[in-house]
Amino acid sequence: MSLKNSLVAAAFAATSFSFIGSAQAQEPIPVAAATIETAAMLRDAALNDDTAYEVLEELTTEIGPRLGGSAKELEAIAWAVKRLNEMGFDKVYTEPVQVEKWERISEAAAVVGNYNQPLEITALGKSVATPDGGVTAEIVHFNTYEDLVAADAGLVEGKIVFISNRMERFKDGAGYRPAVRARGQGASEAARKGAKAIIIRSIGTDSHRLPHTGGLNYAADAPKIAAAALSNPDADQLERLLKRGQPIQVHLDIQTKFHGVVEVANVIGEIAGRENPEEVVIVGSHIDSWDLGTGAVDDGAGVALNIATADLIKRLAPQRPRRTIRVILFGSEELGLIGARQYAAAHKDDLPNLIIGAESDFGAGPIWALASRVGPGATHVVDEMAKLMGPLGIVRHSRIAMGGPDVGQLGLIGMPVMDLMQDGTDYFDLHHTADDTLDKVDPANLRQNLAAWAIFAYMAAEWPGRFN
Amino acid sequence: MSLKNSLVAAAFAATSFSFIGSAQAQEPIPVAAATIETAAMLRDAALNDDTAYEVLEELTTEIGPRLGGSAKELEAIAWAVKRLNEMGFDKVYTEPVQVEKWERISEAAAVVGNYNQPLEITALGKSVATPDGGVTAEIVHFNTYEDLVAADAGLVEGKIVFISNRMERFKDGAGYRPAVRARGQGASEAARKGAKAIIIRSIGTDSHRLPHTGGLNYAADAPKIAAAALSNPDADQLERLLKRGQPIQVHLDIQTKFHGVVEVANVIGEIAGRENPEEVVIVGSHIDSWDLGTGAVDDGAGVALNIATADLIKRLAPQRPRRTIRVILFGSEELGLIGARQYAAAHKDDLPNLIIGAESDFGAGPIWALASRVGPGATHVVDEMAKLMGPLGIVRHSRIAMGGPDVGQLGLIGMPVMDLMQDGTDYFDLHHTADDTLDKVDPANLRQNLAAWAIFAYMAAEWPGRFN
Repeated sequence: MSLKNSLVAAAFAATSFSFIGSAQAQEPIPVAAATIETAAMLRDAALNDDTAYEVLEELTTEIGPRLGGSAKELEAIAWAVKRLNEMGFDKVYTEPVQVEKWERISEAAAVVGNYNQPLEITALGKSVATPDGGVTAEIVHFNTYEDLVAADAGLVEGKIVFISNRMERFKDGAGYRPAVRARGQGASEAARKGAKAIIIRSIGTDSHRLPHTGGLNYAADAPKIAAAALSNPDADQLERLLKRGQPIQVHLDIQTKFHGVVEVANVIGEIAGRENPEEVVIVGSHIDSWDLGTGAVDDGAGVALNIATADLIKRLAPQRPRRTIRVILFGSEELGLIGARQYAAAHKDDLPNLIIGAESDFGAGPIWALASRVGPGATHVVDEMAKLMGPLGIVRHSRIAMGGPDVGQLGLIGMPVMDLMQDGTDYFDLHHTADDTLDKVDPANLRQNLAAWAIFAYMAAEWPGRFN
Repeated sequence: MSLKNSLVAAAFAATSFSFIGSAQAQEPIPVAAATIETAAMLRDAALNDDTAYEVLEELTTEIGPRLGGSAKELEAIAWAVKRLNEMGFDKVYTEPVQVEKWERISEAAAVVGNYNQPLEITALGKSVATPDGGVTAEIVHFNTYEDLVAADAGLVEGKIVFISNRMERFKDGAGYRPAVRARGQGASEAARKGAKAIIIRSIGTDSHRLPHTGGLNYAADAPKIAAAALSNPDADQLERLLKRGQPIQVHLDIQTKFHGVVEVANVIGEIAGRENPEEVVIVGSHIDSWDLGTGAVDDGAGVALNIATADLIKRLAPQRPRRTIRVILFGSEELGLIGARQYAAAHKDDLPNLIIGAESDFGAGPIWALASRVGPGATHVVDEMAKLMGPLGIVRHSRIAMGGPDVGQLGLIGMPVMDLMQDGTDYFDLHHTADDTLDKVDPANLRQNLAAWAIFAYMAAEWPGRFN
C-alpha cells in the first residue's frame, strides 16, 4: 500500500457518489439459492486450501524484492504471466505501464561531533541524492509536519529538519494518514524554508532498527532535497540527544539515481464468463514491492489471494460464473499508483462493463469486515455475501468502500467497489521495511482471506444484476 | 554476554569445587537481625528508585555503541569514571587492559544468478575480510556444525558453507550453547575443508532482518576465512531457495580491519568497607558492547545495575557495610572476556580478600532465581538473601552458580560466586543485534533487579563470615 491510499480515501470522503438511474434500484434481483450454495462450498473449500500461501512463497522466495521500474519488477511480471498460464487461466496478458525508474544506491547517517554515533536510516522512495560526500548540518526538530509548516524559515535555513511524530496503532490503519504527511510533503516544505535535507521518524508502529521507506512527492515550486526515515528507536535516540540542549550535528549521505522512464506492465489473468464474458469483476493487488523487504505483506499476499481466488473458482465451481473474473496485478504501485492510474485512463470507456471491483493490499491479517459502495439495487447482494462470511468472523461495515489504492482508481471514476477489510493492527510494524518477509504471514489467515474473496468474486460474477 | 559465557559454564560443569578447610563450615555465623532489616529497607527503596534506568539512559544515549578496543569504548570508560566520581564513590580508578582492536568496515551479501536478491548479513566479530571485491561461490548447506564436522572435504572445497540450525528459546538461555558452536568454531572447521567463507544462521531467537554478530575463534591450525551471520528471515529464505534443488551462488563482501593491540581499561568504583575495607564483594558487568546496537541489554543494564546498587547502599544504609563493595565494569568482554581474564590474572593473589562476587550480564529481564557456589558455612546466608528476595518473585535455585562470564573468571580460580538469574526468554531476540537499544528495557524490571542486587551486595558485605 502506498501513500496514495490515504489520498484515495480523502478523495472518496470528499465525493458524493450517486447511483441514480440504475435500473436495478427499483426491483432488486434476488440471489439464487444455487449461487449461495456454491459460494458456501467455495468458502469451505478455501479453508483447506493453501494455494495462496504457495503462490506467495514462490513470489517472495524466487523473486524477492521487486521495486517498481526495476529488473526485479520485470522478473515478477514474467513470473506472474508464467504462473497464470500454468494454472490454466483462460486469458493471460499484460498491458504496458510507463514509470520513471528510481534506484537506491547507498544510505548512511550518523550523529557527528558531540554524542557521535551511527543512525539507522533509509532513503524515502524517489528521494534525490545528497551532494557527493553527503551533507552535515545541525538538526532542527519539529514534533509534526504542521509545526514545520508554521515555523519561521530563519529557524530552518541551512539545517537538517527532523520531524518526530510517531504513528499511532489502529486496527484499520487510521494512524497512517495523519502521520504520513511528514513523508509525502515534508521534504518540499523543508526545502522551501532552506533546509539542506530532511529526516523523519519512520511512518510505522514497531520498535525495531528497521526504518520504513515509502514514496515522497516533491512539489513543483520547491528545491529538491534528500529525504530519509529513521527507525523508531533511532528517532527516540535523536529526541533524547536533542533534549540535552546541545546542538546536534548529523551527517547524511544518501545516494540514489533516476534512470528516466522505463516500461513495465500490469499483469492480467482472466477466468472467462460463461454468459457475459464482456462483463468483468475485478480483483486487484500490486505486483511491485519496496526494495527493502520481499513484499510478503505489501503486497505479495494480495497477489497470491487474487490468483488463488480465481483459481479456486475455476477449479471448484460447477461451471464458470456468468461474468469474467479479471485478476489485475498492477505495476509500480508504490511509486505513485502508476500502473493503476494508467489502467484507469486506458479503460475508462469500458466502465459500463466493469461491474464491480475490490483489492487486497493491507497485509495478511484476517478479514474482519465487509464494506461496499454499490447502488440500492445491490445492497442485498452484499448482505448475502456478509451472511456467508459470518462464520469467518466477518461483519458488515457501514463505511463507504474505497476499493483499495489501485482498484480505487476505477472506483473514483464510477465503478462500484467493495472493501474486504483486513485487521491491520500489526501491518505498520512491517510496512515498507526490510522485515516485510514471508515468515510474518500466517497461512491460516490467508485461508480465511481466500474464503472471503471466493464468496465475493463468485457471487459478484454469478449474480446477474448490476451493482451500480 | 559473549560466547565465553557458555565456555565458563562448561568449565564449571567439569570442575568439582571443594570448600574443605573452610573454618566457617563447622559453626555457621548467623545473619544479624539488623542486617536483614537494612537489606529489606534497601530492597523496598530500590523498588522506587530509577537510578539504574537513568544511568542506562545516559550510557546508551550519550555514548551509544562501544565496541571493545574502539574510541567509543574509551569514551564509555571516561564516562564511567566521571559518573562514579560525580556520584561520590569512595574510590574510582581504572586498570589497563590490552586488546587487539578489530573494526567492521562494510558488509554485504546477495544471491547472484538464479533467484538473485540481497541478503541481510553481519560479519562475525573478529572475522577477517573477504578478498577485495568479495567472494562468489556456491552454497554448501549443513543443518548443524556437527554435520559440517562429519562432512567430506570434497563437498566443501571452494564453496561457501551455510549452517542453518536455529537456536531454541529457553528462559535460562539453554539454547545458546548448542547453537553457538557454529559461530565460534564453524569458520575454522569450514576452512580446514577448503571453504572460501562461511555464513551461519544468526544465533538468536527473533524473526527480524537484524542479524546477530558475536565473536568467533580462529583455530591456530586452520586458514582464516571470512564469517558472517544471516538474519533469521534471510536464513529461512536461503533454505527455501536451496530446497528448489538448483545450485545457489552467493556473493559475500565483508571488509574488516585489525589494528593491533591497543590499551583500554577495566573501570572500578568502590564503596569502602567500614571495618574490613581490604575484604571485597564484587559486583560486575562489562562496559563494552557490540557495535551494531547501543548495548542496552548487553550489557548497559548490568553496568547501570552495578552502579545503582553501590550507590543505593552508599546513600541509604545507616552506615557503610563492613566490607568494600567493588563495582568492576570490565573492558572488551565481547572480544573474549579480555578485561576479565587480565583482571583475574592480575589479582589472583588477592583471592583471600575477594569474598564473593556476582555479575549482571543477561539482559534486563526480571530476576527469577538465586543460585550460589559457596561453602557449607554460608548457605544459610544465601537462604536469608533468597527469603528477602521472595517478595520480588525470586526463588532459590539448586544449580551451581557460575558468576557470569567476567566475574566467573575469578570464580574459576576459587572465589565464591552467586547468580542472580534473570528471565532471558526474550534476551536472544536482541542479543548482539542493532535492536539492542534502550526502548527494549522496562524500567520496572530494572527496579526489581536493583532490589535483589541491593540485598545481595549489602548482606555479603555486612555479614562477617566467609563464603568459602
